Amino acid sequence: MIHSALFTDLYELTMGQGFLKKNMNRPSVFDVFFRRHPFSGGFSVFAGLDPLLDAIENFRFSAGDLEWLEKRGLFEKDFLDYLSSFRFSGEIYAMKEGSIVFPDEPLIRVHAPMIEAAIIEGLVLNIINFQSLIATKTARISLASNRGSIMEFGLRRAQGPDGALSASRAAFIGGAKGTSNALAARIWGIPAMGTMAHSWVMSFDNEEEAFSAYADIYPDSSVFLIDTYNTLESGLRAAIAVGKRLAERGKNFGVRLDSGDIQYLSTEVRKALDREGLTKATITVSNELTEEIIESLVQNRAPIDTWGVGTHLVTGGNESSFTGVYKLAERTTASGTTEPTMKLSDNPAKTTNPGVKQVWRLFNEDGSAKADVLTLGSEHIPPGECLRYYHPANDLQSFSFAAAMAEPLLAPVMRNGARVNPAEKLGTIQKRVRSGLSRFDKSYLRILNPHVYKVSLSETLKDLKLAFLGRTDT
Amino acid sequence: MIHSALFTDLYELTMGQGFLKKNMNRPSVFDVFFRRHPFSGGFSVFAGLDPLLDAIENFRFSAGDLEWLEKRGLFEKDFLDYLSSFRFSGEIYAMKEGSIVFPDEPLIRVHAPMIEAAIIEGLVLNIINFQSLIATKTARISLASNRGSIMEFGLRRAQGPDGALSASRAAFIGGAKGTSNALAARIWGIPAMGTMAHSWVMSFDNEEEAFSAYADIYPDSSVFLIDTYNTLESGLRAAIAVGKRLAERGKNFGVRLDSGDIQYLSTEVRKALDREGLTKATITVSNELTEEIIESLVQNRAPIDTWGVGTHLVTGGNESSFTGVYKLAERTTASGTTEPTMKLSDNPAKTTNPGVKQVWRLFNEDGSAKADVLTLGSEHIPPGECLRYYHPANDLQSFSFAAAMAEPLLAPVMRNGARVNPAEKLGTIQKRVRSGLSRFDKSYLRILNPHVYKVSLSETLKDLKLAFLGRTDT
Repeated sequence: MIHSALFTDLYELTMGQGFLKKNMNRPSVFDVFFRRHPFSGGFSVFAGLDPLLDAIENFRFSAGDLEWLEKRGLFEKDFLDYLSSFRFSGEIYAMKEGSIVFPDEPLIRVHAPMIEAAIIEGLVLNIINFQSLIATKTARISLASNRGSIMEFGLRRAQGPDGALSASRAAFIGGAKGTSNALAARIWGIPAMGTMAHSWVMSFDNEEEAFSAYADIYPDSSVFLIDTYNTLESGLRAAIAVGKRLAERGKNFGVRLDSGDIQYLSTEVRKALDREGLTKATITVSNELTEEIIESLVQNRAPIDTWGVGTHLVTGGNESSFTGVYKLAERTTASGTTEPTMKLSDNPAKTTNPGVKQVWRLFNEDGSAKADVLTLGSEHIPPGECLRYYHPANDLQSFSFAAAMAEPLLAPVMRNGARVNPAEKLGTIQKRVRSGLSRFDKSYLRILNPHVYKVSLSETLKDLKLAFLGRTDT
Repeated sequence: MIHSALFTDLYELTMGQGFLKKNMNRPSVFDVFFRRHPFSGGFSVFAGLDPLLDAIENFRFSAGDLEWLEKRGLFEKDFLDYLSSFRFSGEIYAMKEGSIVFPDEPLIRVHAPMIEAAIIEGLVLNIINFQSLIATKTARISLASNRGSIMEFGLRRAQGPDGALSASRAAFIGGAKGTSNALAARIWGIPAMGTMAHSWVMSFDNEEEAFSAYADIYPDSSVFLIDTYNTLESGLRAAIAVGKRLAERGKNFGVRLDSGDIQYLSTEVRKALDREGLTKATITVSNELTEEIIESLVQNRAPIDTWGVGTHLVTGGNESSFTGVYKLAERTTASGTTEPTMKLSDNPAKTTNPGVKQVWRLFNEDGSAKADVLTLGSEHIPPGECLRYYHPANDLQSFSFAAAMAEPLLAPVMRNGARVNPAEKLGTIQKRVRSGLSRFDKSYLRILNPHVYKVSLSETLKDLKLAFLGRTDT
């Protein structure tokens, strides 16, 4: 875990000194939200909250950090003194970790003096962006596999040691059954899993000898890697020979495929195993699997029991970052009044929603989710009341709806810089993802070209936004 | 830095126990190599060696690690005893960090007893894969910018805290001028850089006030972010007003663009600044830049002085992992003789090169690189001697060449588990990348569709490989 509050962008510190010198270290509210789902998907999974809260509680400048800052020649004694006693003292509201989330929704709301809010920005985004990316990817892979058995195999391809450890955590939240990474398993208390490597096979004179030696030692958990030389000839033949001896002792076994055409090979391997009466032997596959490849194999009924997923699961594959941002939503003026703020930009998608906001999830009578709505913090959505909701970028588009149930999603998680609740069990968060997804129509969860779930604005928030646009048009 | 030797895949430990029980913990040689350049590029940059060697020297199982392993129920006392005194005792050969490298070449060669070699596999690949990915990406971005000024801005989008810190190091090696990440700057001794955020601008009543306050405090390093409301209207106008006052005091300033069409906006901003006599004011741009976007802007003469690159630089963007693998090249048999090994696989690209190998870079008379050649470790390539070299996957394709100079690239970096040399300065490694690239024809360095640099086999290695293929065809 990161403790040094130097883990921040230099400009947060130069701006921080500016706020101090200009007597502007006043209360502020920042929103964390993202702009689009990764992987062209229809949903995202919010993850990383627990490690983030731990890191914020412990975020400090060490004597060495301060000395380094002093040497930059940019900072004066007053500000360095401020930093020497820095601790985050604010309030944080957040969605529950493992929530299913959508673009433009505040996932986290930070209430703190400007300097504190600025200094934690990078930490907040770094942790939330990465873990949400991986939890989302894993949930997609789990859905594609039809809730199959997913093993996270990513240690060697992850982005640095912590990239691997954080990814194992987020992958478990997203639905992985376990990890190959022993340290991650220890730290997070999740199942450690594994098969064998090509080097094991190559250390012996032939595959049968290699498999036999392994089965001797691990008769209850042997999965033979059969593609070192020739999968369907030597590898499978050796696995069947050793597997039959295990079967005679009442033990099961498995085989793993790590190259070649998985659809073809898994089908041939299954046929051969069944022909030999080894109908319980399992097939594990790996090798640059993605949700698209897995979905295609499942739809084509490839007889696969377990999926080992590495690169794409722990890095996101072709999309390697979540687009979470941290934007000022409210400031306090010199006279002490609070005032909503809004960023415009030449890029309409980069325009923010002003003010202190709440996110509500509206449900249909059958318990399925209908739409999410952003409101100002003071608003309430009573069940049964028919209200009109507006498209966030186009107020001509609106719909009215009486929610059977309306749930506010942001709740306090930190007060005066201290956590409100203890850390949750990862299993609890994993279950939240699964039950959360079950509230959404399948069209929103589709891997390819999903339906777009509505995130709308309340009338009050829409009016506030329009007032801003009017004000700056003049 | 990671210290726990539990940072390994569980199967390394189950196989390790197997090697111990079967009396097979014998000397072995493993190669680290990769299969294709990332980003459809024509070269890669080898990075991560120094942190890797530090981590290997300190890789140990703590009492807590051993206790956790014991509780798995998989490991017996003998093996746990072995692990309790585990330290890597082998020899490592490697290319120099910052070398320009190509597919199939051993970047690192590990000589160690099987169990030690297995336990460090994940650590080696994790560190080398990530840092080489980022150093390669940065070198591409630097080339695309025509050796412009690249700032690494990735903290908030990196894959976890260490993902950010490691990425800052690798980005500097690849050619970045500095980082926004203060902790990375401190740890690696590289320049810390930054401008200002939208939240600074939004904290004031208007942009001129915000810029003016900043210029008051930082008259020597003011870069005004001008896209918070309307770039060419309010933002630029305010920057010019404040910039003129700085100019009157003999100070320079800059502006930053973070949204909108960079080509159009930078051109308009330049014209306006020049019109006002602010010809020295600089233009910094950011916003999801890639090497392709940068190359296009440079080719179209967009008047940009500094590039702030975040997401794509610290994660690889649409390609988030380097394909480094760790494969057995030589084993020791029960009788104590060493024997080359080779993995075949149904996938020809996954066939390895057997034996203990050296990599030679052959140069033309003018000092430019002609081709790399893999040889067996005992071979020597004398300058001036005309020899024939073979395509690694197709022995019908060959060429003969008399190298003006031939340089062996692998040298010892660790003996008996201890580093041979102290860590290099990052600046030295950064210069090595730059001078290394200068030895290659520009066609190999092209961003799009580069020429393929030859990596060939010596006749002896080609014959050994064919003997293996013959042997397994029977």
